[in-house]
Order: sequence, then structure tokens, then C-alpha cells
Amino acid sequence: MSIKSEMISLAERAKRASEELARLSTPAKNSILKNMARGILKRKKEILRANERDVELTKKKGLSRALIDRLALKPARIQNMAKSLRKVASLPDPVGRIIRTTRRPNGLVIKKIKVPIGVIAMIYEARPNVTVEASGLAFKSGNAVILKGGSEAQNSNLIITKILNETKSLPKNAIQLIGTTSRQAVKELLRLDDYIDLVIPRGGEGLIQMVRSQSTIPVIAHAKGLCHTYVDRDANLDMAEEIVYNAKVQRPGVCNALETLLVHKDIAKRFLPRMIERLEGVGVEVRGCPKSRRIVLSINKAGEIDWQTEYLDLILSIKIVNSLEEALDHIARYGSNHSEAIITRDKKAAERFLKAVDASAVFVNASTRLNDGGEFGLGAEIGISTQKLHARGPMGLEELTTYKYLVYGKGQVRT
Amino acid sequence: MSIKSEMISLAERAKRASEELARLSTPAKNSILKNMARGILKRKKEILRANERDVELTKKKGLSRALIDRLALKPARIQNMAKSLRKVASLPDPVGRIIRTTRRPNGLVIKKIKVPIGVIAMIYEARPNVTVEASGLAFKSGNAVILKGGSEAQNSNLIITKILNETKSLPKNAIQLIGTTSRQAVKELLRLDDYIDLVIPRGGEGLIQMVRSQSTIPVIAHAKGLCHTYVDRDANLDMAEEIVYNAKVQRPGVCNALETLLVHKDIAKRFLPRMIERLEGVGVEVRGCPKSRRIVLSINKAGEIDWQTEYLDLILSIKIVNSLEEALDHIARYGSNHSEAIITRDKKAAERFLKAVDASAVFVNASTRLNDGGEFGLGAEIGISTQKLHARGPMGLEELTTYKYLVYGKGQVRT
Repeated sequence: MSIKSEMISLAERAKRASEELARLSTPAKNSILKNMARGILKRKKEILRANERDVELTKKKGLSRALIDRLALKPARIQNMAKSLRKVASLPDPVGRIIRTTRRPNGLVIKKIKVPIGVIAMIYEARPNVTVEASGLAFKSGNAVILKGGSEAQNSNLIITKILNETKSLPKNAIQLIGTTSRQAVKELLRLDDYIDLVIPRGGEGLIQMVRSQSTIPVIAHAKGLCHTYVDRDANLDMAEEIVYNAKVQRPGVCNALETLLVHKDIAKRFLPRMIERLEGVGVEVRGCPKSRRIVLSINKAGEIDWQTEYLDLILSIKIVNSLEEALDHIARYGSNHSEAIITRDKKAAERFLKAVDASAVFVNASTRLNDGGEFGLGAEIGISTQKLHARGPMGLEELTTYKYLVYGKGQVRT
Repeated sequence: MSIKSEMISLAERAKRASEELARLSTPAKNSILKNMARGILKRKKEILRANERDVELTKKKGLSRALIDRLALKPARIQNMAKSLRKVASLPDPVGRIIRTTRRPNGLVIKKIKVPIGVIAMIYEARPNVTVEASGLAFKSGNAVILKGGSEAQNSNLIITKILNETKSLPKNAIQLIGTTSRQAVKELLRLDDYIDLVIPRGGEGLIQMVRSQSTIPVIAHAKGLCHTYVDRDANLDMAEEIVYNAKVQRPGVCNALETLLVHKDIAKRFLPRMIERLEGVGVEVRGCPKSRRIVLSINKAGEIDWQTEYLDLILSIKIVNSLEEALDHIARYGSNHSEAIITRDKKAAERFLKAVDASAVFVNASTRLNDGGEFGLGAEIGISTQKLHARGPMGLEELTTYKYLVYGKGQVRT
């Protein structure tokens, strides 16, 4: 069978599964999700073993620390996989919920109700936890899912999807992993808009651009996060230090981590020495603009390329700005519309920042790392959308549904 | 200047305009909309003159009756243009509305608020009223719009956008019409995802397919409506007759008009003769399946191609089915997920139909022609989305906005 016809029959199977999934009751779905969690925990060792193989092969290839951080599973991360499935089971089911009922002057009754999207293809990089989370969320929201994970995680993904698919009562083909790591398979898949309703690419710019240009299916990109934190003139500097440290260091390999720190000139001399000392103390490489390098002599030089770079690593670029407006200009120019923060006690500055910044989430006095489905109370997320259509920011169960109108008449016609 | 750089500077201008538009107050926008309506009425003659030129040229080219129906303006249609602008002025402004406020256990306050999408490109066929409606809706929802209408309507569109742009206080470049009718211009435009946030193609399958395959910008397609009405065994036949007549005849050239009538075998003999007589009486060409042709001898033969065709004309295909399930299968196979109707007094049949049919709007005992923003109480619509992401069915002001999260902290970090 050619790759093309293989992809078509995979997508056809998904479409048939989606019809069955749309009819499942909430209790049935929740019970299956809890059994998935049990399966994952019970077979933890198999997953760890497969993941070790993936990690070893990846280390041999000499790939980046950020990639290995995302790929490597420890027992705690597997616990978290099971926990996320149980969490999804506990969340309210959006499917069938009536969003609005309208009675029109001509007597028509119009109900707008939530329905599953249908078939979702998820293309992502080497993060095995995404395999579990995407499967759980797609399933609970009544969608069939086609998964294509990064080739570095292929052994982990194979065993995880095998375990999930062995869950009792899970409709066949609800969760399918593309077995091949061929790029051609993905290209064929991206043309199947008759079967697949949504494709979610989650990863670096190369992946996103490839999907955007190849796909005839609607795309919701989970693209890069080049996130800034701006420490304003009126910031509480102790608070700023904690927030910046958290945003850069707590998990540098993910999209809502801090990449560029903007500091108002009036507080730079007081703030930067202590901030940089603390960051360097945990191994962060700091690169600064000329002004910041006159304040802290030890740091490296930051240039144009740094403002454009999502490091995803223990590297931070720093720029001193003359004003809030200059910070806003920098963010408008280099930001990726993902997560942006201001640290300030000045309410007017905060409101100006909130209004002017075009990003999925804009923070005042908090870490950009908090742009997350769990932290936002969505329960869990399939990723963070960096585009504006359908879903922006964390995508949870609600965002994995669409709606339709049910219209009840008594013979009404158009006049 | 090359077409490419022309399109880039047009898109750049739109992006700058969108920043200004996002800041306009609701009263300012409403006053501008009312002035637009005045401008359209005052210069009605100029519009009619330009439109006459378009209609004459189009008739010479021998294009279809449906196309000319959509293109031709009469004084009443211009009145409706002005009316639609005043209507949009009267509608609530979604921009800035708080969708939800959440307080998290860690004290974070998260506000989800409605914001404009940004820059919207609208690609449509020869319907000058769309030029007005799209401009009014995009403007009220704080978006800049780039319009590319069908070349047959170019004279009408030029004068309409000229009049709109001469409205006092309208920000410059809020409404731009692509002056050239070159296909290359559109192709260049569809790659400008740095500037344009959404493209809405509204028209035939060729246009939609071209946009889907060329665009790197998110697309919301307003594609074909191959709409069915199923007259069930338990239908009130008088009601069925009125609804079918309305859905086919009232305005056959539009997407929510009826194309294929499905009739349960048990009532076909009672229903079809009177129905067909009435339709033929107003010039509808009826094409039927073999069974229906044994009931009414005068009608033409319908074949596979008819089930696949959106006539957009005074033509109707008819199929007799053995059951509700057969009707559902036919709709699943040939329908375009647009508008589908069942005529029945049987509540269980109605619920089965509502649940099983995958369409933007599913009707019980009403005409598919009612799938419309105005009829649904959205006030006005930019079109009817036939896809599932972001907006499904009629797209009004709400659907022309997105959201962002404003997050208020007191030093919260990720733990």
C-alpha cells in the first residue's frame, strides 16, 4: 500500500471512530479515562524502558539539552500522565451543553449546542507526555485523534498508545499513532480535509511553517513563545526578582519560559546586579545590551539575533529601555504573541501594558510560566495556541469542541 | 512596484489601521456607521450607474442567471445596504466585553476579554452588498478589512468603497479594496500571515480550494450549500409544501436554498404531485429518481451528478427514500454541512435527525433559508461558515472577534 492510501485509510478509520465517540455518554468516557490512567501506572516500567532507548539514541545524535529535557521520562512524570488522565475524567464534559437558546419573533427556537470537532491530527515534537494528554483531552471531548510525535520519542509513543488502546471499551481507532516517521506521511495527511477537521502542530518554527504551507485542513498552531518580562520603574524589585527567576529557571525548555528581560533605566542599577548574580549562580548565561554591560561587566553581548531567539535553554537576554513605550515597541517587534509580563506597582502602567500587548495572555506581577491550562483552571491543556482563531492561549476541553445550531420550527419560512 | 510589494504595503497599512480601530470607542464607531449609511443613500444613483455597467458587461459575457441575480442592484437593495449599516450600528459592541473572570486558588485573577481579530481579508464573488456588509461588520468589531470582490462587480465595489472611505472620521485604510482583478494579487496576499489574521473566502468550490491550498493565513471558508429537506412519513404535508416551496423558490441563487428534496416512500404519492405542480408552475425544473418519475411522469431524470450539484438556480432534484436512516445516509454522503431540514410531526424522528446530521444548522419544520445571521438574531452576518473552527454557520460581530487573557498577580510564580 502506498503512503498516500495508508494515510487515507487511517483518516477514514478516524472519521468512523469519531461518529462513535460523539455518541458516548459522559460516565462511559470517564470510566475509560480512569482505566487508561490505571494502564499507564501499571505498565510504568515498559514505558520507562522504551523511553530510555529513545533518550540514549537521542543523546548519541547529540541533540540539545532542551529536547532531552522534554523527552526524558522519570517515574514522577509517568505519575503525572496518569494524574492528567484522572483529572480529565473529573472535568465537566462540554459535549451536548447548550450554549444559548434563542426564541425569535417568528417563533423559531434556536439552540446553540457544543459538539465535538470530529477528527483532530496532532503533530508535535519529542514530548511523550503530550501523547497521553492529547489522547485524553481529544477522547473526553468526543474527538478521534491522529498522533504524529517527534521521531526521537517514537519508542515511548508506541508503547503509550499501545497501552491506551488496550483500555477496555475504548472505541477502536479513537487514538491512532502514525507508525512511520516519514515526512511524506505527514504531507499526505495534511491534504485530507475531507476526513480531518483540525490539525494542531506544536513545536518549532520549521514544523509550524511546513504545516501552514502544506495543509488544506484548518490549523491551530502551537508555535514558539518568545516571552518578555518588563520590570517597570515602579516595580517591587524583590517581587520582580522572584518572578524573573521563576520564568527563566523553573523549566527553561518550554514555550512560556522567559527569553528576554526588559528593564526600565531608572531601576537598572539597583535591580540588575542582584538579579544577574542570582541567575548566574544557577548556571544561566546572561547576554545584555551595551547599557546593561556597563552595569554588570561579566555578561556577554546581546545583539539583534538574541532579540529574535527563543533559547528554550538557560540563556537570558537583557535590554534596558527608557520607557514603558519602548518596552511595548520591543515586544510588538520581537514578541510571538504568546505570554508577556509587566512588573509594576503603577496601575496606569499595568493597564496600558494589558491593553497594548497583543498576546494570548498578558500578566501583571506574575510569571509567564503561569500561561497554562492547569494554572488557568481549564483542568488540562492540549497546548497553547499562538494564533487568534477558534482558540487562543491554553486549549482545554472547551476549545476542542465546536457547535451547531438546532432550529425548532412550526412551518416558518423566509419572507 | 511589483504586485508582491504592493500587497505587502497594503497589508502593512491594514495592520496599522487595525491598531487604531481597536482603540475606537463604541459611540465613535456607531456614528461613523450611520454616516456610512447616509453616504450610501445619498449617492445611490452613482452606485446604480456603476452597477448597471457591471451587469451589462456580465450579460455580454453570457454568465449565469444566478450570478446576475447576485450582482444586480435595485434601489431596494441599496436601501438594504444602508439599513444593514444602521443595523450594525445598533448592535452591541463585543470588543472589550469580559467573557469570564476567574479567581485561582493562588490569588491570580484572570479576565478573558473580547478583542478584535486584527486584519481580515475577504475574498468573495460578484455580490456588491457583501462589500457593504463586510465593511460594516469588520469595522464595528474593530478589524481592518481587505476586500477582493468578484471582477464582475468591480465598478460597483469601487464606488461603494470610495463612498465608505469618504465617511468623516473613519480611520484611514480601515477598508481597502484590491484595485486589480489579477489572480496573482490574491496569491501574494494569501502568504502575508505576518500582517493578516484571517481570510474569509466566500463563493464556489474553485475559489475555496484555491484559497485553502494557497493560504498560510487561517481560513474560514464560506463554501457551498448543498442543502436537503427531508419530508418524513409523519409530515404535515401542507406545511411541507410551504417550506419546500420557500426553500427552493424564494431566492434560489444563494447558499441556503434547497437543492435536493428527500421524500419518504409512504407519503410520496400524496405529496409529490401537488408539490411538483406548484414548483413547475413557477418555472422550476424538477429532476427525479426513478421511483418519483413513476409518480409524476413529466419530470426529468436525476442521476448521481444531480445529488452532487448545488444548482443555485430554479432546479430541484428529488429522491424517494425508504426510511429516515436512508435520508440521513444520503445527507451524510452528499450534504455540505451547511443547512439541512426535516419536516415531521414525529418528535423522535426529529431528535434523531437533529443529532445525526453534521451541519452548521439543522432545522425541524422550517425552511433552510432561515440559516442567516439576521434570522438567527445576530443582527447581520459576514457570511455563513461551512467549517467547524472558530465560527460555524452565520458569522456576525461576535464571530469577528477573538479574546485574550488579562492576568492580575501579586507576585505569583509557577511551582
